[in-house]
Amino acid sequence: MANRSCIIRLSRYKNAIIRLKSLNFVRVFSDNLADAVGVTPSQVRKDFSIFGITGNKRGGYQIDTLLEQLNSILGKDSIQKIIVVGIGNIGKALLRYSGFAKSGIKIIAGFDIDPAKYNKESEVPILGLEVMAEYIKANDIKLAILSVPDFAAQQVLELLLPAGIKGILNFAPICLRGPQDCVINNINIEMELENVIYFVNVSGKTRGS
Amino acid sequence: MANRSCIIRLSRYKNAIIRLKSLNFVRVFSDNLADAVGVTPSQVRKDFSIFGITGNKRGGYQIDTLLEQLNSILGKDSIQKIIVVGIGNIGKALLRYSGFAKSGIKIIAGFDIDPAKYNKESEVPILGLEVMAEYIKANDIKLAILSVPDFAAQQVLELLLPAGIKGILNFAPICLRGPQDCVINNINIEMELENVIYFVNVSGKTRGS
Repeated sequence: MANRSCIIRLSRYKNAIIRLKSLNFVRVFSDNLADAVGVTPSQVRKDFSIFGITGNKRGGYQIDTLLEQLNSILGKDSIQKIIVVGIGNIGKALLRYSGFAKSGIKIIAGFDIDPAKYNKESEVPILGLEVMAEYIKANDIKLAILSVPDFAAQQVLELLLPAGIKGILNFAPICLRGPQDCVINNINIEMELENVIYFVNVSGKTRGS
Repeated sequence: MANRSCIIRLSRYKNAIIRLKSLNFVRVFSDNLADAVGVTPSQVRKDFSIFGITGNKRGGYQIDTLLEQLNSILGKDSIQKIIVVGIGNIGKALLRYSGFAKSGIKIIAGFDIDPAKYNKESEVPILGLEVMAEYIKANDIKLAILSVPDFAAQQVLELLLPAGIKGILNFAPICLRGPQDCVINNINIEMELENVIYFVNVSGKTRGS
């Protein structure tokens, strides 16, 4: 069945396909996608077959059909509404990030505890935490990006869950865990950097430099 | 031996320990760390034993010693200099991000192709791409954060590698691969969001809602 790694590969195939389409490709072969994503061709075919996507050995896959199928699997056939909680440096950058729109993700509001950050008039309104639960329910929001400081993350999580949030992308540098019916992906920038630093240092040492 | 997952767990233990220290803890047990990070106590002991860190069954680990050992393993016993390439929304947010300083990571310069973004006078100078290679060599920089648009990522990578960069944290929404002697970690925010969306949709369907 599809696990997290498989879904991440589907996203990567989709991104590769979008680029190939912009190069006027009409068909794509599992070998092409394997090269683009850095997996084996049989992995590509296996991932697709889980979702009933079959190609033609000679002709490969039709790019347009394949893209539709992947978008449908990845929930991209409808606009996904999302809120950003915590309008600090990272939160602000995400509000302005243009990559989401083309991926069918629409940030519809931001929330912060600091009244100085409120802005009801802007295209994406910034509102107070005290109205967040009501807003989530009224707009039937299922997704949130969390970009609050670590010490606030758990408390904010406990506001989001009863309001109906089912999926969270967490940038707070703390590994959040939620109940079974809420998906939380953690992106810890410091930890990723530490990881890079560790492996750079190790490979520096093993090369004797 | 230590792989990526193990090093990520070490970062998580370290973050938990820093929080426990701020609560005046002096000792910590593998059970505490297991709870904090969401792994088994035997996993904690196994990870530590790879690096020769041994505790005392009754007394656990001394927090100060453990923190020193983890910082040393993670290359945090010296300041790590890093540059940011691409001063867009994400790049700007990273320049202002205060979390790095306390982790011993110091952003010493930013680079962009757009002269409108140059700022030689600011605390962290923003310079042009044409002086980047020279700057990296002169300052013996090994680490870079890449926050350029996807279409520019490969080209920038090819400037960074010969200049001596050995580790990259890549935010450009393209899966970069480098030569064997360069560590590249990719953070793709859109892909992580797609992943959350997929699993939210799947669990919505399986619950029949």
